[in-house]
Amino acid sequence: MDTLTDLKANTRVLAFDIFGTVVDWHGSIVREMHQLHPQVDGNAFALAWRAGYQPAMARVRSGELGWTRIDELHRMILETLLPEFGLTHLSEDQRVHLNRVWHRLDAWPDSVQGLTRLKQRFTICSLSNGNLGLLTDMAKRAGLPWDCVLSAEVFRAYKPDPATYLGVAQVFDLQPSQVMLCAAHHDDLAAARACGLRTAYIERPFEFGTHNPKDVSPQAANDLHATSLLALAEQLGC
Amino acid sequence: MDTLTDLKANTRVLAFDIFGTVVDWHGSIVREMHQLHPQVDGNAFALAWRAGYQPAMARVRSGELGWTRIDELHRMILETLLPEFGLTHLSEDQRVHLNRVWHRLDAWPDSVQGLTRLKQRFTICSLSNGNLGLLTDMAKRAGLPWDCVLSAEVFRAYKPDPATYLGVAQVFDLQPSQVMLCAAHHDDLAAARACGLRTAYIERPFEFGTHNPKDVSPQAANDLHATSLLALAEQLGC
Repeated sequence: MDTLTDLKANTRVLAFDIFGTVVDWHGSIVREMHQLHPQVDGNAFALAWRAGYQPAMARVRSGELGWTRIDELHRMILETLLPEFGLTHLSEDQRVHLNRVWHRLDAWPDSVQGLTRLKQRFTICSLSNGNLGLLTDMAKRAGLPWDCVLSAEVFRAYKPDPATYLGVAQVFDLQPSQVMLCAAHHDDLAAARACGLRTAYIERPFEFGTHNPKDVSPQAANDLHATSLLALAEQLGC
Repeated sequence: MDTLTDLKANTRVLAFDIFGTVVDWHGSIVREMHQLHPQVDGNAFALAWRAGYQPAMARVRSGELGWTRIDELHRMILETLLPEFGLTHLSEDQRVHLNRVWHRLDAWPDSVQGLTRLKQRFTICSLSNGNLGLLTDMAKRAGLPWDCVLSAEVFRAYKPDPATYLGVAQVFDLQPSQVMLCAAHHDDLAAARACGLRTAYIERPFEFGTHNPKDVSPQAANDLHATSLLALAEQLGC
């Protein structure tokens, strides 16, 4: 593993996972559901929607579905949830609006300031399974100061496909070791590391809600471990 | 043609051509050549390099070359120019550095302020044949405040392929008429218009140098005609 000095000297691009790492999908959906459909258990609804995410992408990875963007996958999952949560009366416009809640997720409180500091020294980009339009709308609303919005949509492959991690290095003509993935999920980081990227784990204990804290213990294989994006900026001397 | 009121109400995304429209490729290359290789006629060199651009892309469009990024096309053209301009002594590192001058182009004086104003009301993105890494480096250096960097590289097709213009609309789930291409080149705008986009012509009389002004007369088919990006912001009420 590189020393911190090596890491600072060699890293050129920081690529960020988005859902859970930079933005609070659970809290944002709970808040919107409380406003739009207060009769629904927002916590259960948010968790159920997110639980459909990996299986939906798996259908694309396996070839069962052709290339399908997250907006469309979110909509497919939403349709299956409506009966369960008593929302079958929603009109098409209401369904479209609700599905776009993923474009309106709020950043964690440290994200904008942390990214702004990191941007002074590194090129910062998203590397999310979210589609380009979703990520752009989200960034514009939340003030996320990306140098470049990168997405599975650009590489036509979903993480953890190596084409996504290696794709970032190729876009910037870098060695994989000059790119660091920053994420709140150890499996995403492990897949990036297998491609030669450096990795930073970001603690997001309340990704699944404050009543459902997740284990954020360090794993030794990660190059860095930070409690927030501000802490990451501090560690990287920004 | 829409009225100005319709245009303001319906347009959601402004997509910008880059080389010549947002940045001054000719002046930037002349200035760098004056510093790096003062013995070379920078004006002739810049014009010759740019003259190779459309023929190189035509080789990709025709299928003679597989998908090739502009960085690589610029390098291929550069290699053909080195003998002509007495630069065959350049080392590999010097050639790489010179080729990346396209990542270091300066914005026209009104670009950053104009885009910053337009961004308040519209989603603003690049739509350039330049590759993502080039456009990101350029934006970071020049301070271009894109909401999203879009490129031929995302669509694997070069303008004027309809896949590029329609691709912008698809990324943002919009009708083509909700996207406006802003460019200093009537052929680019005509191709966008054929796909249903709205178009704004930007006057850049000195794209080819101050001693070689180009015709910037209005063409009636464009929805808007502006003397600068600040003037465009003014017209669009930003």
